[in-house]
Amino acid sequence: MDLSSFITSLTTSFLIFVLLMLLFTWLSGKPGNEFVYYPNRILKGLDPIEGGYASRNPFAWAREALSSTENDIISMSGIDTAVYFVFLSTVLGILALSGVLLLPVLLPLAATDKSRKTSNQATSNGAFSNLDKLSMGNVGEKTDRLWAFFAGTYWVSFMAYYFLWKAYKHVSQLRARALESPEVKPEQFAVLVRDAPALPVGQTRKEQIDSYFRSIYPETFCRSMVITNNKKVNEIYEELKGYKKKLARAEAVYAVEGTRPTNGSGLLGLLGKRVDSIDYYTGKIDRIIPRLTAAQKATLRENQQAAALVFFTNRMAAASAAQNLHARFLDKWTVTDAPEPRQLIWSNLDIRFFERQVRQIAVYVVVALTILFYMVPIAFISAFTTLANLKKLLPFLKEVVDQPTIKTILEAYLPQMALIVFLALLPELLLFLSRSEGIPSQSHVERAASGKYFYFSVLNVFIGVTVGGTLFSTLEEIEKDPNSIINLLARSLPRNATYFLTFVALKFFVGYGLELSRVVPLVIFHLKTKYMCKTQEEVKESWFPGDMGYATKAPTDMLILTIVLCYSIIAPLIIPFGVVYFALGWLVLRNQALKVYVPSYESYGRMWPHLHSRVVASLVLFQLTMLGYFGAKKFAYTLIVIPAIIFSLVFALVCHRKFYRFFQDTALEVAARGQNEPAPNMGQIFRCYLPPSLTHEKVDKDGQP
Amino acid sequence: MDLSSFITSLTTSFLIFVLLMLLFTWLSGKPGNEFVYYPNRILKGLDPIEGGYASRNPFAWAREALSSTENDIISMSGIDTAVYFVFLSTVLGILALSGVLLLPVLLPLAATDKSRKTSNQATSNGAFSNLDKLSMGNVGEKTDRLWAFFAGTYWVSFMAYYFLWKAYKHVSQLRARALESPEVKPEQFAVLVRDAPALPVGQTRKEQIDSYFRSIYPETFCRSMVITNNKKVNEIYEELKGYKKKLARAEAVYAVEGTRPTNGSGLLGLLGKRVDSIDYYTGKIDRIIPRLTAAQKATLRENQQAAALVFFTNRMAAASAAQNLHARFLDKWTVTDAPEPRQLIWSNLDIRFFERQVRQIAVYVVVALTILFYMVPIAFISAFTTLANLKKLLPFLKEVVDQPTIKTILEAYLPQMALIVFLALLPELLLFLSRSEGIPSQSHVERAASGKYFYFSVLNVFIGVTVGGTLFSTLEEIEKDPNSIINLLARSLPRNATYFLTFVALKFFVGYGLELSRVVPLVIFHLKTKYMCKTQEEVKESWFPGDMGYATKAPTDMLILTIVLCYSIIAPLIIPFGVVYFALGWLVLRNQALKVYVPSYESYGRMWPHLHSRVVASLVLFQLTMLGYFGAKKFAYTLIVIPAIIFSLVFALVCHRKFYRFFQDTALEVAARGQNEPAPNMGQIFRCYLPPSLTHEKVDKDGQP
Repeated sequence: MDLSSFITSLTTSFLIFVLLMLLFTWLSGKPGNEFVYYPNRILKGLDPIEGGYASRNPFAWAREALSSTENDIISMSGIDTAVYFVFLSTVLGILALSGVLLLPVLLPLAATDKSRKTSNQATSNGAFSNLDKLSMGNVGEKTDRLWAFFAGTYWVSFMAYYFLWKAYKHVSQLRARALESPEVKPEQFAVLVRDAPALPVGQTRKEQIDSYFRSIYPETFCRSMVITNNKKVNEIYEELKGYKKKLARAEAVYAVEGTRPTNGSGLLGLLGKRVDSIDYYTGKIDRIIPRLTAAQKATLRENQQAAALVFFTNRMAAASAAQNLHARFLDKWTVTDAPEPRQLIWSNLDIRFFERQVRQIAVYVVVALTILFYMVPIAFISAFTTLANLKKLLPFLKEVVDQPTIKTILEAYLPQMALIVFLALLPELLLFLSRSEGIPSQSHVERAASGKYFYFSVLNVFIGVTVGGTLFSTLEEIEKDPNSIINLLARSLPRNATYFLTFVALKFFVGYGLELSRVVPLVIFHLKTKYMCKTQEEVKESWFPGDMGYATKAPTDMLILTIVLCYSIIAPLIIPFGVVYFALGWLVLRNQALKVYVPSYESYGRMWPHLHSRVVASLVLFQLTMLGYFGAKKFAYTLIVIPAIIFSLVFALVCHRKFYRFFQDTALEVAARGQNEPAPNMGQIFRCYLPPSLTHEKVDKDGQP
Repeated sequence: MDLSSFITSLTTSFLIFVLLMLLFTWLSGKPGNEFVYYPNRILKGLDPIEGGYASRNPFAWAREALSSTENDIISMSGIDTAVYFVFLSTVLGILALSGVLLLPVLLPLAATDKSRKTSNQATSNGAFSNLDKLSMGNVGEKTDRLWAFFAGTYWVSFMAYYFLWKAYKHVSQLRARALESPEVKPEQFAVLVRDAPALPVGQTRKEQIDSYFRSIYPETFCRSMVITNNKKVNEIYEELKGYKKKLARAEAVYAVEGTRPTNGSGLLGLLGKRVDSIDYYTGKIDRIIPRLTAAQKATLRENQQAAALVFFTNRMAAASAAQNLHARFLDKWTVTDAPEPRQLIWSNLDIRFFERQVRQIAVYVVVALTILFYMVPIAFISAFTTLANLKKLLPFLKEVVDQPTIKTILEAYLPQMALIVFLALLPELLLFLSRSEGIPSQSHVERAASGKYFYFSVLNVFIGVTVGGTLFSTLEEIEKDPNSIINLLARSLPRNATYFLTFVALKFFVGYGLELSRVVPLVIFHLKTKYMCKTQEEVKESWFPGDMGYATKAPTDMLILTIVLCYSIIAPLIIPFGVVYFALGWLVLRNQALKVYVPSYESYGRMWPHLHSRVVASLVLFQLTMLGYFGAKKFAYTLIVIPAIIFSLVFALVCHRKFYRFFQDTALEVAARGQNEPAPNMGQIFRCYLPPSLTHEKVDKDGQP
C-alpha cells in the first residue's frame, strides 16, 4: 500500500465519521427520536435530555460523557459497564504513555537511518514507501539504534504492568463496594446446588434437599426451590404469550379503526376461513390456560431435577456455603453461588458433573478445530483481496479496477472489509458452543464465548494475516530458499503494519460513527412504529436498546490492542491510532452507556480477570514478536528480551494469586459488612427466581404464587 | 550379569533374610528385649506379647500380622498407617493380577522365539544369558508375538485403574470415618490464620484478630492464640531442660552409688574446678527460672507475629472457615485448617504469603538442579561399578577380583550397594528444603519431601541407570553411528532388567530382614542402658521407637514399583520379585506398625492423593517405555499404545476432580455428623496448642497456664 491510498483510506474514514457525528447531533435533537437516543434514561424514569433541546451544540454529548463520573456509570449501567470503562482507560493509559516516549524518540531514529539503503531489496518492488520509512523495517541490521527500540519494548511492558496493577486493585474495590451495599439482591441469599445424589426410597427431591441442608445449616437454612425441566410448560407459555399479543393487537386495531379485525384460522393466520380475531384469540387463550395450569402442576410434580436453589436467611451463610465442599465427592452436591434470577439458564442446571466436564472438553476441541480450519480461508481472503491478485484471478474486473479513484478506494478497503464481515459471523456460533458446555449463567456463557473469540481473532486475524499474507505474496521466494523464511517474516511485519493501520482506522471511525449515530436502530424504529406496531408493548419492543454486547466488543478491542502493542515498536506510528481508537471508544460508549443501552445482567465485574489476563497475553505476544524481530535484525543482545517475558508471566501469576479468588468467591468480610438488618423478605427473594412460565397464571389470579 | 551371579545374589539375599528372621524370633522372645520389639504395645499400656512367650513359634508374628484387621491398625497406629497399607495392598493387587496372566503367557512366548537368533550381535559379547532369554529382548522384530506383549501392556494398565479406583474410594471412606468420630480433636476446632494485615494504630495484634473474626463469626468465634516468635524462650527452655536432666542424672547416681557426683564448672562439664553436681545444677536451675519467666512474658508481649490460631465453638464453623475466602486479597488473612498441635511448625507461621511463594519456587529450582547434577555421579557410579570397568580403572584389584567367589559376589552386589548407600543420604536434605518452603505442618513437610524424593529416585536411579549404563558401556558404538541410539536403548532395557532384579531382591530380603530383626536399635538399646542411662527418662528415650518414616519409605516403594511396572512386559520375570517385595513389606511392616513404631502425627490420610498420583505417574512412565520399546522393535501398531497413555491421564484427572478436594478440605456433611453435644471444653483445646516453652513454669506452679 502506498502513501496516497493510505491517506485516502484515512480521510474517507474520517469524513464518514464526521458525517455520522453531524447526523447524530441533528437526529438526536429531533423530538420523537429520544426513544432511540435516550432509551436508558427513559426507562430509568429520567428526563431524556438534561437542559432541553435548545442548549444543544454538536459536542454537548461529548462534554457530558467526559464530565460523567464512575458513579454515574454504575448507577445508570452497573458495575460490569464501569469495569469495561476501567479496561478502556487502562489500555488508553498504557498506549498514551507509551506513545509519549516512543514517538519522539523512535520515529526520527527510524527515518534517519541510512545503513539499510545500500542493500535494500525491498525498495525495488515498491513495498517501501514513505510511510514504511518511519518503521523499524528501515533500521539496518546490527546497528546501535536497535538499543532504543529494545528500551522501548521494556518501557511499554512496564507501563502495562503499572496500569494493570492499578486497575485490578480498583476493580476489586468496585466489586467489593457493590457486594457490600445494603440493597437486597436475591442472588446474595441463594446458592445453586447441582448433582444431588440419587433419591433415597420414599423421599421426594425437595425433602432430600431440605433435610440435607437443614442438617448442615440448622440455623441459617431457609428454603429450597427444586429445579424443574420446564421445556413443555415453556412451550405452552410461549404459545399463550403469542395469542395474548395478537389479542392485544386486535383490540388496538379495533379501538383505532372501529371495525373488528379478522384473520384466517389456518396456517399463520393467513389461510382457512376468516374469523373474528378478538373472539378467536380470546377462545384460544381460554382453552390454553387450563392446559398451562395442568402443565405447571405436572412440571412441579414430575419434572423435578437433581438440582435446586437453596435460600439462606443471611448473606454470610450463602457466601460461605458457595465456597464450601459439602459432600466427600466433588461430583455430589456441587454448591456454587447463585447467578441473578434473570441470567439463570434453567435448561443447563440438570447436566451432571462429569457430563459438564466432557461437554467442556468437546467444546474446546470443536473450537480448536474451528480456529484451525478458519485459518485457511482467512489466509486465502487476505491473499485474494489484494488488488493485484484480484486482477489476476478475475481479469474482467481490470477495466473497472484500473480507474484511479476506484482503484485507490478498493485497495484501501477491500481487505479490511472482508475481514470485518468475516468476523461478524462468529459470535453467535461461539455463544452457542459456550452455552452447550452446561454453564449455569448467561454472564458466564458470554465470558466464555468472549474468551474463545479472543483466541480466534488473535490467532486468525493477527497471525493469520501476517503469516498468511507473507506466505502467499512471497511463496516463490520461499520455494527458492526455505531458510529465508525468518527474513521474510521480519520484512513482512513492517509491511503489514500499514494494513493494520488502516484496519484500526476503519474500525474506529466508521465503527464508532455508526455506534454513536445509531442509524440502523433509528430506521428500524421508525419503520416499525409507522407500519407494524399497534400496541404500546410493541412500540416499546421496537426501541428497547438491549445490552451493549460485551462478548463481542471486548475481543475486538483486544484484537486492536494486540495489533497496536505488537506493532508499537516496529511501527510506532500505529500508537496514535490505537490511542484514538480507545479514546473515541471510551467517549462514544460512555454516551451510549449513560443514555442508550440497558444491561441485561450484572456480574459485579467478573469480566475483569478475563480482560486482565488477555491484556497480559497480548503483552507476551508483543514481547515474543519483538524477540523474533530483534533476532531477525541480528541484534546481538536479542536474548535480553526474555526477562521481559518472564516478568510478564510472573506478573500474571502474582495478580492471579492475589486478586482472582475474590472474583470467584465472595470474601466473607465483604459479605459480613453487607448484612441486612432486619432480615429481608425471604418470600420475595424466593419469588424472584420463579420463571414466569411457572407462575404466570397464579400471579394473574391472586398476585401471589 | 550371567545366571550364576544372579543366583548367587538371590540365594545370599535369601539366606541373610532367613538368618535375620531367625535372629528376630530368638531375640524377640527373650525377656528384656520387649522394649525393642513391642514398644508401641508397651506405650499403649498393653501386654507386650499376647499369649506369653511359651506359645511362640518362628512364624507367630506373621500369623498375627495376617490376622490383624484394618481397625487394629487404625487403633494402634492411626489412619496414616492404615492408608500406607492400603497403598501396599493396592500395588500388591496390581502386580499379582498382572503376573497371574502375564507370566504363563509371555515367558514361553519369549523363550521359544527363534527369529532373533540368526542376527544376534548381543550374544557375542555375552549379554544374552539364559536369563535374558526369558525377556522381550529375545523376541524378534516385527513378529506377531509382539501382539501378546502389547495386550499385556493394556492388561497391566486396566488392573492399575481398577485397584486404584477402589483404593481411593476406600481411603476417602477411612478419612471420613475418622473425621466423623465424636472424639474431640483440637485441630477440628481451630483454624490457622496467617498474613494478618498491618496493625491499625492503637490496637494490639490480639485485639485486631479477635475483632476481625468476631465480626465475621459473631456466634461461633471462641478465642484466638497469637503466634509468637519463640526463638529466645525456646533457647532458655532447652537450657533449663538440659540442666534438669543433668540434675536428675546426678541424683540418680547419688541414689545408686551413695557419693555425690561432681563435675567441672567449665566447658562441657569437663574443665574448670570440680563442683558438687547436685548443688551446681540446682543453682543453675534456680537462676534460669526467673530468666525463663521474664522471657515468656516478653515473648507474649513483644514477639507477637501476624499469625494466629483461631478457635471456634464447633467443628462446622472451623471446617467452613478453613475453606472460605476472608479478605478481598488472597495475601491478607489467609485462613487454612489448623494442623495437630504436635505437628505445628511455629517458626514457619510468620512467613508472608508472597515470601512463601518465592521460597517455594526457589526450593523447586534447587531441587531441580540437584536432580540434574546428581544424574552425573549416578551415571558414573553405575558405569564404574561394573566389575569389568573397575578392573580396567584399578588394575591392582585384578588379583583379588579374579578369584571366582569374590568376583561373583562383587559382581552381584557392587552396583546395588553403591546405589543404596547413595540414596540413603538424600532424605534429610529434602526434608530441610521442604521445611524451608514455609509449610506450617510437619506432615505436609514430609509429604513435600516425599514427592521430591520420588522424582529424584525415578529420574536418577531408573532413567539414570538405564540411560547412563547404556551410554557408558557403548559409547564407542554411538560414536561410530549416532543413529543407533534407539536400538541401543532398546537392547539395553532388557539387559538392565537383571540389574534391577537383583536390586529389588536385595532391597526386600536384606532391607526387610533388617527392619524386622531391629538389630541396630537392639544393640543401641543394650549399649545405652548398660553404660549411659541413669534415670528412667533416659531409659525410655533409648528405646523410644519413633515414627515409621513415611517420607522415605513411600518413595522407595514407588521406585521399586516404577522399576517393576516398567519391566513387567519387557522382562515379566521381575513381577514375582515385585510381588514378594510388596507382600513381604506388607507383612513385616504390619508387624512393626502393630508392635513397634509410634506415629508422630496423624494427617487423616492426606498422604493418599500423593501416593495415588505417583502410582499413576509410574504407570504413564511404563506406558511411555513400552511406546518406545515397541517402536524399537519395529512393531507396526506401536501407536495404539498412545490411547493407554491418554486413558491414564484421564483417569488421573477424573480421580483428582472427584476425590481430591476432600483430602484438602473437610466436607461439611462430614463435619456436621461429628458435631459434639455438649460442646467440648474449649480451654483444654486451647491449651493443647500452647508450646511447652511458654507454659512450662506456670504449669509447674499451679497446673494452669
